Amino acid sequence: MNTLGIIAGSGLLPGAVAQSVQSGGGNVFVVGLRGAADEQIGRFPHAWASLGEAGKMLRLLRENQCRHVLFAGRVARPGFSELKTDSKGILLLPRVVAAASRGDDALLRSLSDILAEEGFLPVGIAEAAPALLAAEGKLGHYKPDSESARDMALGIKAVRALGTLDIGQAAIVCAGLVLAVEAAEGTDAMIARAGVLPENIRGTPEKRRGVLVKALKPTQDGKTDLPVIGVQTVENAARAGLAGIAVEAGRSVIVERQQVLETANDAGLFLFGFPKGAE
Amino acid sequence: MNTLGIIAGSGLLPGAVAQSVQSGGGNVFVVGLRGAADEQIGRFPHAWASLGEAGKMLRLLRENQCRHVLFAGRVARPGFSELKTDSKGILLLPRVVAAASRGDDALLRSLSDILAEEGFLPVGIAEAAPALLAAEGKLGHYKPDSESARDMALGIKAVRALGTLDIGQAAIVCAGLVLAVEAAEGTDAMIARAGVLPENIRGTPEKRRGVLVKALKPTQDGKTDLPVIGVQTVENAARAGLAGIAVEAGRSVIVERQQVLETANDAGLFLFGFPKGAE
Repeated sequence: MNTLGIIAGSGLLPGAVAQSVQSGGGNVFVVGLRGAADEQIGRFPHAWASLGEAGKMLRLLRENQCRHVLFAGRVARPGFSELKTDSKGILLLPRVVAAASRGDDALLRSLSDILAEEGFLPVGIAEAAPALLAAEGKLGHYKPDSESARDMALGIKAVRALGTLDIGQAAIVCAGLVLAVEAAEGTDAMIARAGVLPENIRGTPEKRRGVLVKALKPTQDGKTDLPVIGVQTVENAARAGLAGIAVEAGRSVIVERQQVLETANDAGLFLFGFPKGAE
Repeated sequence: MNTLGIIAGSGLLPGAVAQSVQSGGGNVFVVGLRGAADEQIGRFPHAWASLGEAGKMLRLLRENQCRHVLFAGRVARPGFSELKTDSKGILLLPRVVAAASRGDDALLRSLSDILAEEGFLPVGIAEAAPALLAAEGKLGHYKPDSESARDMALGIKAVRALGTLDIGQAAIVCAGLVLAVEAAEGTDAMIARAGVLPENIRGTPEKRRGVLVKALKPTQDGKTDLPVIGVQTVENAARAGLAGIAVEAGRSVIVERQQVLETANDAGLFLFGFPKGAE
């Protein structure tokens, strides 16, 4: 396989993908999006570009023999007026701006389409780094009890409803009550908020109750922004008194899996992969 | 009309209903739910009871010649194990607990059903205090511009989707992006959270953008928990940089209307009543 180009947004996912590809004997070249990508991409062959520098991005990918290209991590909706652009970027910007007004997923898809038109082959994490994907069923030592199973089912309904409108990927349900749903604030902030609700409607580290459900939006194609669970997610969920975390099998990524499982096991949380496509 | 019994949960709504009924020449008797109702109900003929003291509540309502009864304000899901109960309450508790596990609205509806079986006539705010309901169209000095009109339309879709699952009543949309959706934390906390998101995706007091949409859940019958806007809502929305607030006409309550409109006008926010039933 030729070199995989990774266009890196924020978070741990780009590094995890790069690591996974290298572990399998493949080569990567990472284009870090300025203001978004983590410094950790410095561990891999890389360069930096602004979201508006499409010309530079395409050139970097070509110079580094990337034929397959993958987006990983989140890209904050840019302030287009302040965006650094090059001549190619300026030509493409109206299209990206128009897409951005239809939501984050449309924004990412438009970038992916542009790459395809330029002769690259956009690939998803499922193809490039399948080892990162969550498996189905019980993933750690613990499994959901009957209340948690019901909460998980309601949480799946909630995230599907949110996802249909491109709102968010995550929700927290406890004893049949939806405690929190994610929009632009991100999963960590949502978990923290659930952890300070009145104690009679939520769990505590002493008596764990409630489930964080995270799943791909139906508007997403799984190439751009798979839901990600990391050690921080588990630590936050543990602090908020949750009983466990449920992710969609085959469509969610667990970064630093070994540490994630250890953290969950130590805190007494379950990690569960619910069947792909469950409604 | 005989005396209207008002079972008062938290917030300003119970007092606003009582005031509105009295202004129209009617009588009220308020049963304040302990731990929920505001001290302000002390301005009206009243008594206090726990949510588990169904016998006491029914007796108080009968003693005060209440035939029509109305629930107003929110009722936090109780910690049933700690709830103070009387003998009637204990008999009814299993049914209320079962309802509570199906959501807040089911909880309130089960209480309403119990009152009906005891010979009372549950009434809604639309019947008892129609003057509190939001009218349709522009309510203050300002009206939504074209971006805000689009944001309002998306916000309505979002709250309907949330409401179908009994999650929440409110959402904030800015430039096509859903910034925040309400679950158990309540509207004020949701607005505050939107106001600290990165500035490039939201408005500011200097350059207002974004709309708070609040609407009845489809699972609600409008008798128990109408969405409420008050001065605090407008002040929070102003602080968070929003352009305006949209509520469902005929199915939302504006308490302290004159002050609400003045606050909105002074801050440059629009208040808009979108048509009842809009999807």
